[in-house]
Amino acid sequence: MNYGSIRYIIGCILKVEALLMLLPMAAAVIYRERSGLAFVVCALLCLGVGTLLSLKKPKKTTYYAKEGYISVALGWIVMSIMGCLPFVFSGEIPSFVDAVFEIISGFTTTGASILPDVEAMSRCMLLWRSFSHWVGGMGVLVFILAILPLAGGEHNLQLMKAESPGPSVSKLVPKLRATAITLYKIYLGMTIIMLILLIIGRMPVFDALCITFGTAGTGGFGVLNSSMGSYSPYLQVVTTVFMMLFGVNFSFYFLILYRKAKDAFSMEEVRWYFAIYFSAVFLMTASLTVQGGGILHNFHHAAFQAASVMTTTGYSTTDFNLWPSFSKAILLTLMFIGACAGSTGGGIKVSRVIIYMKSVKKEMAALIHPRSVKVTKLEGKVVDDTMLRSVFAFLSAYLVIFVVSLLVVSLDGFDLETNFSAVAATFNNIGPGLGAVGPVSNFSAYSVLSKLVLSLDMLIGRLEIFPILLLFAPSTWKK
Amino acid sequence: MNYGSIRYIIGCILKVEALLMLLPMAAAVIYRERSGLAFVVCALLCLGVGTLLSLKKPKKTTYYAKEGYISVALGWIVMSIMGCLPFVFSGEIPSFVDAVFEIISGFTTTGASILPDVEAMSRCMLLWRSFSHWVGGMGVLVFILAILPLAGGEHNLQLMKAESPGPSVSKLVPKLRATAITLYKIYLGMTIIMLILLIIGRMPVFDALCITFGTAGTGGFGVLNSSMGSYSPYLQVVTTVFMMLFGVNFSFYFLILYRKAKDAFSMEEVRWYFAIYFSAVFLMTASLTVQGGGILHNFHHAAFQAASVMTTTGYSTTDFNLWPSFSKAILLTLMFIGACAGSTGGGIKVSRVIIYMKSVKKEMAALIHPRSVKVTKLEGKVVDDTMLRSVFAFLSAYLVIFVVSLLVVSLDGFDLETNFSAVAATFNNIGPGLGAVGPVSNFSAYSVLSKLVLSLDMLIGRLEIFPILLLFAPSTWKK
Repeated sequence: MNYGSIRYIIGCILKVEALLMLLPMAAAVIYRERSGLAFVVCALLCLGVGTLLSLKKPKKTTYYAKEGYISVALGWIVMSIMGCLPFVFSGEIPSFVDAVFEIISGFTTTGASILPDVEAMSRCMLLWRSFSHWVGGMGVLVFILAILPLAGGEHNLQLMKAESPGPSVSKLVPKLRATAITLYKIYLGMTIIMLILLIIGRMPVFDALCITFGTAGTGGFGVLNSSMGSYSPYLQVVTTVFMMLFGVNFSFYFLILYRKAKDAFSMEEVRWYFAIYFSAVFLMTASLTVQGGGILHNFHHAAFQAASVMTTTGYSTTDFNLWPSFSKAILLTLMFIGACAGSTGGGIKVSRVIIYMKSVKKEMAALIHPRSVKVTKLEGKVVDDTMLRSVFAFLSAYLVIFVVSLLVVSLDGFDLETNFSAVAATFNNIGPGLGAVGPVSNFSAYSVLSKLVLSLDMLIGRLEIFPILLLFAPSTWKK
Repeated sequence: MNYGSIRYIIGCILKVEALLMLLPMAAAVIYRERSGLAFVVCALLCLGVGTLLSLKKPKKTTYYAKEGYISVALGWIVMSIMGCLPFVFSGEIPSFVDAVFEIISGFTTTGASILPDVEAMSRCMLLWRSFSHWVGGMGVLVFILAILPLAGGEHNLQLMKAESPGPSVSKLVPKLRATAITLYKIYLGMTIIMLILLIIGRMPVFDALCITFGTAGTGGFGVLNSSMGSYSPYLQVVTTVFMMLFGVNFSFYFLILYRKAKDAFSMEEVRWYFAIYFSAVFLMTASLTVQGGGILHNFHHAAFQAASVMTTTGYSTTDFNLWPSFSKAILLTLMFIGACAGSTGGGIKVSRVIIYMKSVKKEMAALIHPRSVKVTKLEGKVVDDTMLRSVFAFLSAYLVIFVVSLLVVSLDGFDLETNFSAVAATFNNIGPGLGAVGPVSNFSAYSVLSKLVLSLDMLIGRLEIFPILLLFAPSTWKK
């Protein structure tokens, strides 16, 4: 294990985190909030520790996949522990476990909260919460890759692989630093457009900034107790559209940028993503309309909720906990499917789901014609055995972690719907679940043990399982 | 497609079914029940149609996997349609859909019932219900293989492959007919031992016969509204032990018979099966005891319920719907894991779960050492790529069918716990679920559509997905 490199990278992460805290500090100055002092203390702490850790450049330059995964896993944990301190120091979230839950929920773009009353928080804290979505959405290490000239290509590739959502980063591999910069340019551009559209719709600027951060990162932290429920339909429509756009594989925007629109629009994953979304909206609108209410009204809310859940953002315009069972079952299904790979969204990812479906088709063909050999393709490329093995190991690990989490959380005694959806909502980085953790409730009622397990689930889900698993595997640490 | 062979095999199945109806007929004579006449009519019908279909021996002798799967899928459907007619003709279950649900639940060894009052049924009908578990447990085609000299080895192997639960029948392949006979001998022997032990415990002979059939097939149809709740602790213990024994991979008994006890006891799947079972019992006993009640009393019920659910039998001694969430979550987990491959039990099967876990371990090793090549082994043998592909295609198909069923069943408006566990309980061939389909309730409240979907789920689950999928796939029927 190349400890020097890991130490150095964590140092860089902390220095970046100190930098990020300038934004809530600025908010504190503007709104004259004393709680902003907590950010000054924490930023200095991050800067100090970060500088100490990154003082010496690592001697060994060998850097393998293992180091990449461990740097990312440790980096995210350290970043979360430091990032929650402003909540604790300011006394706005006095419990350390609650504060850790809240900031991990932020960085992992989950949006699950332990706050019963969001509106009681100071503005600088609310901005920090929402900003953590924006930072975590694209990934803080991708950011570091974009701004810092680190060691070699292998180095960077490993970090990017470990932090990016989805089964493959192959398309983005050549010229990695340039790719990271372009990614952040697209991300920033879309964020600014959304911000302007919200401000045009007369959303208060502070709200608009927070909601935009939450949407771009597909996070879901809001600034009102009603989440998005009390904003105008126009603002809700803008948010719906941008949630869907941030859930698209960013390769799509790359292709558009490089004037390959035809290739972009023929992307299998993106097509399936929208096909699933619109089928869900159609079925939910029908199911809601049978129960009553205008069809347009129902369509509006179904479109918002489906986008929010499928992209794993987690905003709500209405309490979908009260919806008919059929619509709730659809939302639950969308929770697991999730957004596209290479987006800021979570869940299993559409591309993996496509591969799972194709494997069924392939197996049926193999049963009928045992001697025929067919390959599975995705986006026109052969899905090789290594990728298949990895995609299925992901599914196995996903199910095991899900079940173990469900068992531990069940110790608190809530009903099955609550527990099941709590795990689903955190593990898939969505935010609100159903039952007692529905959109008008929060996670504060869970025990400390459950909160820690759910926090870990958020991290495991955001980093796509293996970095965190490797961190805890004894074999990783053997000579 | 070799239609001649398929026709011939279905004819044989119907003739066997006519023969099987002699048992309820005998019961009708003994208990002087007029409803027994329904069996005479149905047996003659089966015999007539069966004889017509099997009059001409098939000309073509080519018989591939495809024909095997289709024969099994169609055979089970035809057998169920004919097998439900006694319920309809006697008027004891007047609705055809309900009757089909009930007999499919019988043959697939599910044990889910639409009957609100089991005790109102005549004895010959109760015996037929329970007997269908026994027949379906080992498989009617395995039975045909044992008694009828069919075409060649390829022929038989395909049928056995399609009907036997679990990822592999490799161990049983040589001397197939002898294997089928031995399987039925073991099955019959264990059934008789259990029957005697129940009668010694003063269970009424009729009850003992039905409960033994239900246990041997891991079915779960009882003769009392309280399932197993009103029998003595001794009888409950005997049932617990035999449920577990019938959930063991029958290769274990083969090895014992051939005096290879050491090999038998080192079977990986059997060890994991008991390890999972005892862990579950331990955790459930602890969880129940925290709530109150004597530890021995709780252990007794936990041991019974865990065995019943894990082997997918479905008997109950108590309403586990009222148990603490943690114990319910454990039961739900056991529902999915299921029994051993090559047993009469259902579910995903312990051996598949082992392969899934090993794939995670292998992937982690591959991430740390990308160039090392490791193989996955089960029972000391390499799990080759074909088997891996098939085991994962099974998981993919399993999840897709589960989600689609859940969505359709949700249309009826019950809560998530009820719907989720209803699909889990039928698809895994268990019987009772949680909530409104818990052990003291039944499936009668569901709509006709839901009952049909759940019936199909029982068939798909029992035949391990692909035979039924192939039946509905257009590509199967192309030239």
